[in-house]
Amino acid sequence: MKKIKNMSENNIKSIAVLTSGGDAPGMNAALRAVVRTANHFNIDCYGIREGYNGLIAGDVTKMGPRSVKNIINQGGTILKSARSKEFMTPEGRKKAYEQCQKLGIDAIVCIGGDGSFTGAKVFNEEFGIKVIGVPGTIDNDIFGTDKTIGYDTALNTAMDSIDKIRDTATSHNRVFFVEVMGRDAGFIALNSGIATGALDILIPERRDSLDDLFETFETAEKVGKSSSIVVVAEGEELGNIYDLAKATKEKFPNYDIRVTILGHIQRGGSPSCADRVLASHLGYGAVIGLMEGKNKVMVGMQSNKIVYTPIEEAIKKHNEIDKDLLKIAEILAM
Amino acid sequence: MKKIKNMSENNIKSIAVLTSGGDAPGMNAALRAVVRTANHFNIDCYGIREGYNGLIAGDVTKMGPRSVKNIINQGGTILKSARSKEFMTPEGRKKAYEQCQKLGIDAIVCIGGDGSFTGAKVFNEEFGIKVIGVPGTIDNDIFGTDKTIGYDTALNTAMDSIDKIRDTATSHNRVFFVEVMGRDAGFIALNSGIATGALDILIPERRDSLDDLFETFETAEKVGKSSSIVVVAEGEELGNIYDLAKATKEKFPNYDIRVTILGHIQRGGSPSCADRVLASHLGYGAVIGLMEGKNKVMVGMQSNKIVYTPIEEAIKKHNEIDKDLLKIAEILAM
Amino acid sequence: MKKIKNMSENNIKSIAVLTSGGDAPGMNAALRAVVRTANHFNIDCYGIREGYNGLIAGDVTKMGPRSVKNIINQGGTILKSARSKEFMTPEGRKKAYEQCQKLGIDAIVCIGGDGSFTGAKVFNEEFGIKVIGVPGTIDNDIFGTDKTIGYDTALNTAMDSIDKIRDTATSHNRVFFVEVMGRDAGFIALNSGIATGALDILIPERRDSLDDLFETFETAEKVGKSSSIVVVAEGEELGNIYDLAKATKEKFPNYDIRVTILGHIQRGGSPSCADRVLASHLGYGAVIGLMEGKNKVMVGMQSNKIVYTPIEEAIKKHNEIDKDLLKIAEILAM
Amino acid sequence: MKKIKNMSENNIKSIAVLTSGGDAPGMNAALRAVVRTANHFNIDCYGIREGYNGLIAGDVTKMGPRSVKNIINQGGTILKSARSKEFMTPEGRKKAYEQCQKLGIDAIVCIGGDGSFTGAKVFNEEFGIKVIGVPGTIDNDIFGTDKTIGYDTALNTAMDSIDKIRDTATSHNRVFFVEVMGRDAGFIALNSGIATGALDILIPERRDSLDDLFETFETAEKVGKSSSIVVVAEGEELGNIYDLAKATKEKFPNYDIRVTILGHIQRGGSPSCADRVLASHLGYGAVIGLMEGKNKVMVGMQSNKIVYTPIEEAIKKHNEIDKDLLKIAEILAM
Repeated sequence: MKKIKNMSENNIKSIAVLTSGGDAPGMNAALRAVVRTANHFNIDCYGIREGYNGLIAGDVTKMGPRSVKNIINQGGTILKSARSKEFMTPEGRKKAYEQCQKLGIDAIVCIGGDGSFTGAKVFNEEFGIKVIGVPGTIDNDIFGTDKTIGYDTALNTAMDSIDKIRDTATSHNRVFFVEVMGRDAGFIALNSGIATGALDILIPERRDSLDDLFETFETAEKVGKSSSIVVVAEGEELGNIYDLAKATKEKFPNYDIRVTILGHIQRGGSPSCADRVLASHLGYGAVIGLMEGKNKVMVGMQSNKIVYTPIEEAIKKHNEIDKDLLKIAEILAM
Repeated sequence: MKKIKNMSENNIKSIAVLTSGGDAPGMNAALRAVVRTANHFNIDCYGIREGYNGLIAGDVTKMGPRSVKNIINQGGTILKSARSKEFMTPEGRKKAYEQCQKLGIDAIVCIGGDGSFTGAKVFNEEFGIKVIGVPGTIDNDIFGTDKTIGYDTALNTAMDSIDKIRDTATSHNRVFFVEVMGRDAGFIALNSGIATGALDILIPERRDSLDDLFETFETAEKVGKSSSIVVVAEGEELGNIYDLAKATKEKFPNYDIRVTILGHIQRGGSPSCADRVLASHLGYGAVIGLMEGKNKVMVGMQSNKIVYTPIEEAIKKHNEIDKDLLKIAEILAM
Repeated sequence: MKKIKNMSENNIKSIAVLTSGGDAPGMNAALRAVVRTANHFNIDCYGIREGYNGLIAGDVTKMGPRSVKNIINQGGTILKSARSKEFMTPEGRKKAYEQCQKLGIDAIVCIGGDGSFTGAKVFNEEFGIKVIGVPGTIDNDIFGTDKTIGYDTALNTAMDSIDKIRDTATSHNRVFFVEVMGRDAGFIALNSGIATGALDILIPERRDSLDDLFETFETAEKVGKSSSIVVVAEGEELGNIYDLAKATKEKFPNYDIRVTILGHIQRGGSPSCADRVLASHLGYGAVIGLMEGKNKVMVGMQSNKIVYTPIEEAIKKHNEIDKDLLKIAEILAM
Repeated sequence: MKKIKNMSENNIKSIAVLTSGGDAPGMNAALRAVVRTANHFNIDCYGIREGYNGLIAGDVTKMGPRSVKNIINQGGTILKSARSKEFMTPEGRKKAYEQCQKLGIDAIVCIGGDGSFTGAKVFNEEFGIKVIGVPGTIDNDIFGTDKTIGYDTALNTAMDSIDKIRDTATSHNRVFFVEVMGRDAGFIALNSGIATGALDILIPERRDSLDDLFETFETAEKVGKSSSIVVVAEGEELGNIYDLAKATKEKFPNYDIRVTILGHIQRGGSPSCADRVLASHLGYGAVIGLMEGKNKVMVGMQSNKIVYTPIEEAIKKHNEIDKDLLKIAEILAM
């Protein structure tokens, strides 16, 4: 292997990295990439435990390349994550800044979602510590990257689970309503729904109606589908999944209907190959970005290229569902 | 390969096979074994769709060795399953008998649980059609076999899911209550709980108390466990899983508690190797049993040997939880 | 759900679909999408068995929406695939054309790789039957699409296998050389290598040398890595994997070295979510393309949009490895 | 949970545990059980790294309950394993004994296979340090236990891989020869072969012939099987798998034949539920056995009960293949 020369101008001497907000598979892979890239370029790297809480409390350790061995394939985050109320207060952030000063930290790499980025942005504006965001969330709703870390793994977990439900649905000619995660975003629902041949997919991005749903059931009967799965995003506005099931039962009393909420299994598990590569790429890109003088940005991948988006844009805007996919899902379901 | 001679005395000319009750991974493998073994010994084999309902309705097809190709690895049951109310009535069973006569069926292989076996027993007593049961249920609560078909797969599915929950529990220092299947039996809960290092395991076979549970939480804190999973069997009598979580939150207000009900994913999926081999063994054993003149029995595996148990025993008695395992679980959790 | 109006001008009345060349997970999902989309728009759809051989032999069946149920999650291809020598001859293609005429087929959807596309191109040029290609190959080396169908699944299969090898490598402080598929392309090697923290990755796109490899081993020793995995693409030009292992053993006699060739497991398995969605998208896009008058093109996805590339370009050009990833792999390995 | 009283007479104050020989999934779960059970009963527990080599070198650490957290689900062994040549010499064992004396170790728990047990036996005879064996090997060939730790996981890994190969075999009407592990024992081959519907299974325990194999192929053609998988145990005496494939090609020149050697993927991976529970049970049983005064025995599970077998029996005798299964495999293959 050919050796890479260290970049010449490098004003960053010391960085800290944390994982924050809801955990996502691949956060460890991103952490590993941050630590090893930093060390490769002779930048000190500190790991902060439990998100901003650890920064405030000084729960920080220096990390070398061996600190992150054998974690690329592990779900969760070895740094642990948290949502920090104290960091939302000026006092909390002041304490955090004092810790940074004590350790001589020039920049913080924040692996998390938009809530975590907001904290980073405010912190930078108040105290000047450089910040860079790495998008880690299964929800895939962050602007500035084609995909977020953890999303691909969550899709496969949801799909595997719905495949299993399909086995029993088909064996009993049943109707299943399956709730998947995604907060206000329908990415997981739409894609796992297409991948499992769901009869219908209910997502917050589209105004659904019970009448449309019932019409779909009627069409399914006509074409001879003997079992059906309806995938519902957790943020769906048509109603609670149990209410949907109840309303369906009232309309079709002979249906044998079941409800499953997949829940937190979607947040765990060994990351998929795509997530590990994405996380490795982004963790590397975060350190390179800081070395190149980037600040208050989020690193993302678009069309296989590393891109940096102003962090306020990453916070305000949101990735949009591909409306074509909704149409395709409808056509392919029958 | 050496050829096997057909057994000499074979009064069984024609059998029918059905899957009944809750479906279980491996039912297809058992079906395949029944069909191929029957065909090997020149016995006609009919597949009945949707359990006893299909027998009553005459929804029956002749099956050859190629009818069951590529199904050994598939979850669910290609014959579909159902719980038949009509078969509980004398009129329903009379119709079923007439179908048997029409097709010349000498014996029925019933792949299912104790409810399905009860139907088979009554049917035999009324009309003399021979019956043999094959234990297929994820609950593992059937007497006369070390393990039931589907149990091992369900264990692995439950374990994989709890492993994933463990990732996120550990990342956030959370407490999870996870409900697994098993009706009145704690097999899945106990074994998946041990396999995932659950802090506590609540099963119907043991009288649990909230005080014991709380004491366990307190011990866990003392030894420094930062996250905890409590596995709860669906038949647990201490209370609904949401009530347990609520009571725990009241006792430990600082705990971050989540509930997950794994639900029907435990019934599906490609069967494990152990389940496919067990199902193959039992499907073979069912046909051999009939050829040897067995009737009104259930075929099971005990210590790697095929055994036949009177079907009324299989219905009345139940496999018992290994109490030692409860003790071991307790010791290993901390 | 809202209904979609049929497109108005539709000169395509009847299409045929085949899978050709090496099979890839997701081909069934693509087939399902072609069949259901065609039927949705009232286009007749014929399934051709065993690639071009089936077209020549008239091994063709009409397919409706129910013909493709329960296949979206299955590896392989229910149409079967083959490499057809007869179709490479003018006589073979003439027979194929006669079959098309007999059935009134206006266009052929060819799911396969560049070899299969070449056949389609020549066939179109000779006989005027419209053709459209759908990129299905695990190798990901086809120009005109960000990813090919089956590639993501193959990556995950390779990664899972190497993860397992890592367990035993670490337990024994061993060095493993692992060969992955990809013909002349290093995509699987590079990405699975990054995802598993491989010490080195040898791919045809880079001129590797034994000296570089040995230097990498020496660096690994210095930084204290106790076990190592080297991922080798099957088309690597530095030498046969066994020769590489042998040369390494000569250089480092105390190394405990093992070789594993992952082989055909990389071609099978239930497709990943990304592959199922991609295949659904492309199968839909193929039919829409034909309806819109496209001919002699390949349908691909670039930046989440359906794009059509002249089929000769898809054949001649090749996707290129991201050279940055090689650099990143090197940095993150230590 | 009710508390368990410590056993009254306990002459064991301090034990050491090691993993030795080929690693197997579940060794970590067994280690965890040994460490936690020992600590529960106030017995000091030392972990020895890299098998007997670590004992000789004094590479030993005291382990508490937290030392083994989060390892129950990990493949490999955190203690690492090795085959120790030095321990085969009297000098090596003398050094090992001196280390035991230095640390005050009363007994050694050896997790491994028969080679490792032989070392333990000799060590005990020479120096009187108590020893107990825990059967950890994927080969399942150890007498005194229904199953060995790692066997069930290896079965599932082999099966999953062959399932994937089946996808591509069926798509191309190919014949695959697949070699699985098992040294001189055919357990993995026989059970994974049955579970995947292999056409034929070649194992060392049966005298196979090429003529039988060819006859089986001919029968398969007659019954219309379009693809075939032959599972071959690595210890098969009929010949090298490549030679078998070559001989078959000569006999059936039109066959499209491929060979896959699954190799070391079968040694890794997260252990199955059955293996984790078995390992937990046996690890617990090892410590309890020592507390009860057992020595020079192996702990095993037979019919769900913990049993202790003299270690020389465990070494000399071997588990036998169930010959019925061979017959069943043959019947079910067609």
